[in-house]
Amino acid sequence: MSDFAIIGAGAMGSAVAKRLIDHGATVLTCLEGRSERTIARAAAAGMVPVGRQGLAKAALILSIVPPAEAIGVAELVAEISSGLQAPPPFIDLNAIAPKTMQALAARFGGSTVEVLDGAIIGGPPAAGKPGPTLYVSGDSAERSRLLQDYGLRVRRLDGPLGAASALKMCYAGINKGFIGLGAAMLLAASRSGAAESLKAELAESLPDVDRKFSKSIPDMYPKAYRWVAEMQEIADFLGEDDPAATIFRGMAGVFSRLADDVEGDHALVGQLDEILGSRDTGGAMVMP
Amino acid sequence: MSDFAIIGAGAMGSAVAKRLIDHGATVLTCLEGRSERTIARAAAAGMVPVGRQGLAKAALILSIVPPAEAIGVAELVAEISSGLQAPPPFIDLNAIAPKTMQALAARFGGSTVEVLDGAIIGGPPAAGKPGPTLYVSGDSAERSRLLQDYGLRVRRLDGPLGAASALKMCYAGINKGFIGLGAAMLLAASRSGAAESLKAELAESLPDVDRKFSKSIPDMYPKAYRWVAEMQEIADFLGEDDPAATIFRGMAGVFSRLADDVEGDHALVGQLDEILGSRDTGGAMVMP
Repeated sequence: MSDFAIIGAGAMGSAVAKRLIDHGATVLTCLEGRSERTIARAAAAGMVPVGRQGLAKAALILSIVPPAEAIGVAELVAEISSGLQAPPPFIDLNAIAPKTMQALAARFGGSTVEVLDGAIIGGPPAAGKPGPTLYVSGDSAERSRLLQDYGLRVRRLDGPLGAASALKMCYAGINKGFIGLGAAMLLAASRSGAAESLKAELAESLPDVDRKFSKSIPDMYPKAYRWVAEMQEIADFLGEDDPAATIFRGMAGVFSRLADDVEGDHALVGQLDEILGSRDTGGAMVMP
Repeated sequence: MSDFAIIGAGAMGSAVAKRLIDHGATVLTCLEGRSERTIARAAAAGMVPVGRQGLAKAALILSIVPPAEAIGVAELVAEISSGLQAPPPFIDLNAIAPKTMQALAARFGGSTVEVLDGAIIGGPPAAGKPGPTLYVSGDSAERSRLLQDYGLRVRRLDGPLGAASALKMCYAGINKGFIGLGAAMLLAASRSGAAESLKAELAESLPDVDRKFSKSIPDMYPKAYRWVAEMQEIADFLGEDDPAATIFRGMAGVFSRLADDVEGDHALVGQLDEILGSRDTGGAMVMP
């Protein structure tokens, strides 16, 4: 019996596979209809391609795909599991809202498949790094222990199915929300003639924040287009009754404008780079 | 000739006065119609009470009042300065948007009063602490040097009148906005059963953020009601064309809800305290 099946051989999926394989696991994946780039990445990681039905031979099936594909993957797994005596448990590890997770679990209604809610916090595993933490909720039988046996860092949440998804939403809201807040205010300072002073004041009174922005804002540019949908998902997660949903609708707008700029004339990105790269504090003279 | 006049003997105004007095300055203030508490605070700082017209005898007049009173103070100063041969320069140090600053400066139209835009970043000066930084824009003649000569930390901005106000808006947007973001997401995690895991993950992967929230969120409770207006002011500063204005309208909603809770049954504050004070990570077991 093979150890794992991973649906999704993107940057994260293939890196998780490699970590498991490096620890002695076999990792199946289905590459039907996938791009050459994905096929090459799966091969490089050492993943074993199988047909759709072959995925059900694993001890555990993982879904690591873009949020919009999560429900489709669950439907595929429900389909290949139906009629099996002892289908493998299924862990959704995608950045989806708890409600989406519950809708996803409902696709398995009437089947014996055990559905777990997971979330990955941190970047893809890489050589010499501990890698991300996999949070899992709804795992009373400790099915996720198998992942931990093969080199991944796993934490179980006591909360209900959806708690791991909620954790992911909240963490992303703080981490990515702060990057959006920083980018927006640096741009506002730039158009008001206060950018250099703001940078100098941050460096002095909030040095952690200054370091965070200097690294995370430029890292965000190529991801801004993806973060638009993530911010909208967080707004939906918070719900209409929570005034914080409005914050994330604004964040989606900020990242959307930045994504357009990255595709376009780089006017905003140029302003941000100028502030963040600025070592010249001539505009904010300290009177000695 | 007396050195300074400060209009506003609140926590910040009286502490700035004391710093100047400790460095040998005389600080005038007008206490007509003020509360007993303000009168006592001004006396404790060593401020010298004078009538309205007496303020114009200073070498420099400072306004340190709540944002809503800034325009009224400017009108008073314009009135007492009119007809004087060489009226003292006037520095507005309040947390107002650049547009408000420009409207304020317009109150001096036709007079010879030199109007400077200032902003105070950091808490009130106190014994043994360097104190806040006073940013000043529109100060080509270095009128603010006098403050620096008497123990205050001053930085001049090259930007136009309004640049110091813009700096204050941007800094507050980052600093207070992050506190609002954190409070909102901790509350969302709490109602989703993910609070302990979120706290544990922050402590581990974003320890700076964890420390910041643990201190700044409880410090915010009594100020939340005041931050509602500040967030709205930042939204106005950003303007309708900037999607980030929506972020700050959401922030105003978050702080408004928290302010109601502080006045009311403390349900939200209780949830936040429970998360922030939590040393028990039993809900997020690390599998060794």
